[in-house]
Amino acid sequence: MTGKISLILGGARSGKSRFAEKLVVQTDAPRLYLATAQAFDSEMERRIASHKQDRGSSWTTIEEPIHLAEALSLHSAQSNIILVDCLTLWLSNLMGHDLPIEQEFDKLLTALSKLPGPVILVSNEVGQGIVPENALARAFRDHAGKLHQRIAEISEEVYFITAGLPQKLK
Amino acid sequence: MTGKISLILGGARSGKSRFAEKLVVQTDAPRLYLATAQAFDSEMERRIASHKQDRGSSWTTIEEPIHLAEALSLHSAQSNIILVDCLTLWLSNLMGHDLPIEQEFDKLLTALSKLPGPVILVSNEVGQGIVPENALARAFRDHAGKLHQRIAEISEEVYFITAGLPQKLK
Amino acid sequence: MTGKISLILGGARSGKSRFAEKLVVQTDAPRLYLATAQAFDSEMERRIASHKQDRGSSWTTIEEPIHLAEALSLHSAQSNIILVDCLTLWLSNLMGHDLPIEQEFDKLLTALSKLPGPVILVSNEVGQGIVPENALARAFRDHAGKLHQRIAEISEEVYFITAGLPQKLK
Repeated sequence: MTGKISLILGGARSGKSRFAEKLVVQTDAPRLYLATAQAFDSEMERRIASHKQDRGSSWTTIEEPIHLAEALSLHSAQSNIILVDCLTLWLSNLMGHDLPIEQEFDKLLTALSKLPGPVILVSNEVGQGIVPENALARAFRDHAGKLHQRIAEISEEVYFITAGLPQKLK
Repeated sequence: MTGKISLILGGARSGKSRFAEKLVVQTDAPRLYLATAQAFDSEMERRIASHKQDRGSSWTTIEEPIHLAEALSLHSAQSNIILVDCLTLWLSNLMGHDLPIEQEFDKLLTALSKLPGPVILVSNEVGQGIVPENALARAFRDHAGKLHQRIAEISEEVYFITAGLPQKLK
Repeated sequence: MTGKISLILGGARSGKSRFAEKLVVQTDAPRLYLATAQAFDSEMERRIASHKQDRGSSWTTIEEPIHLAEALSLHSAQSNIILVDCLTLWLSNLMGHDLPIEQEFDKLLTALSKLPGPVILVSNEVGQGIVPENALARAFRDHAGKLHQRIAEISEEVYFITAGLPQKLK
C-alpha cells in the first residue's frame, strides 16, 4: 500500500502553503517539511530561518533543491507525513542547473507512486497570465503546467487556493 | 452590529465590476460608488465619465484614490451600500505615493471591521501568471495577494469571476 | 433549432484541449477539428502535423487562422461536431493582421448563434497575471476577456480546466 498524494495549487501569496500546513497538522504523524528553496544570500537565509521558526519545533526540515525524488524516497514512511514546498521552485532549480526536465519529472512521478507514506505537494499556478515574452519563462510555464497535470492525475486530492480559500478540484 | 463585507475577485475583463454592480442593484438601499481610479489625462477623464453615465443617476460617485479607510468610515451607513472599485488600483496609488503598505492595509481592515453598512469590494487577481521580472510588479502582486487573503478572512462572501460567471469561494 | 455551444477555458498547458477532445469523442458524430494555428516555419509545421496524427484518422482537420465565422458557418451541420482550437490564437492572428477586433467578434457571435450543429471552443485564460508592460499585450488580454464573456453568455456550458481537472462554471 502506498501513501496518499495531495496537490495544493494557487497563485502568488494565495495562502497555499498555509493551507497545506493546516492539512498536515490535522494529523498526528511526525511532520517533515521538504524545502526546495535555495538560500543564495543572507536575506534569503533569514527568510528561510524565519519560516522554519514559524512552523515550530514539531516539524523536521529537510532542504533539497534538486534531488526531490531521492529525498522523498529516503524520508517517506508509513508513520510520517511530508510537505513539499514547492514544486515551482524545484523546477526553477532544475532549469537553473540545465537538467533534463522530462527525465526529472519521470523520476519524481515514479518515486511518488511508490512512497509508503502521505505527501502533500505545494505548487504555484503560473499559466493564467499573458504569454511571457521571455522564452525561458514560456518554457517554465509549459513545464509547470505539464507537471501539474501529471501530479494531479495520480493525486487523491487536488485543491486550488485563492485569497486563502480552497476549492477542491479533485 | 456591522455591515456585510463582500469581496469580488477576477482577472482583467472578467466581468467582476458588472457582477458587483448587479449585487448592489438587487438591494433598494441608496448606492454609493467609491472609485479609486485617478484621472491623469483627458482620455482617462472621458473613461471615468463614461462609466459614471453607464451606472446611471441612481448612484452617487465618490472619488478617493488614497484615503480609502477614511472615505469608507465617512460614507458608510446602515441605510446605504458602498461599492469599492477597485482595490488593486488603490494599491497601485499607495505604491505610487510611496506610502507604507502594511500600515495602510491595517487601517483599511480596521475601518472595514467597524462599518455600519454593507460594502462590496472589487479587486483584480494578479498572481496566477509567471513571476514578473520587474521588482515593483513582484512587490505589487505580493501585496495584492496578502490584501485579498486578509479581506477574504473577514468577508461574509467571496466570489471569483471568470468570463462573467461567478464561483462562490465563501 | 441551433447547435449547442461549449466554451473550454484554462491556462497554458492546463489540459484544456485534451478535455475538449474528450467531450467530442463521447459523441458518435463526425468530428471536425478547426485549427486556428498558422505555421510560419518548419518547426511549427511539424508540431501541427504531430498533433494531427495524435488525434487520429477519425478527425477531419480544417485550418482557418482568420475567417473563423465563415469557416464555422460553412462546415457546421446538425450531423457533425466542430472543435475550435483555439480562440486566443485566432485573436492573435486578427491583431497581427490589424483587423477590426470588435467587428470580427460581432461576426463570430452572429455566426455562432446560427450554427445548426454543436461547437466546442477552446481558449486561453490570460487575464489573471500582473498587468503587462507591453501595450499590445494589454490590448490582447482586454480583447480576450471581452470575447470570453460574450461567448460564455451564449454558451450552454462553460468549463475552466486546471491541471487537467475541469470546473463547470455554467
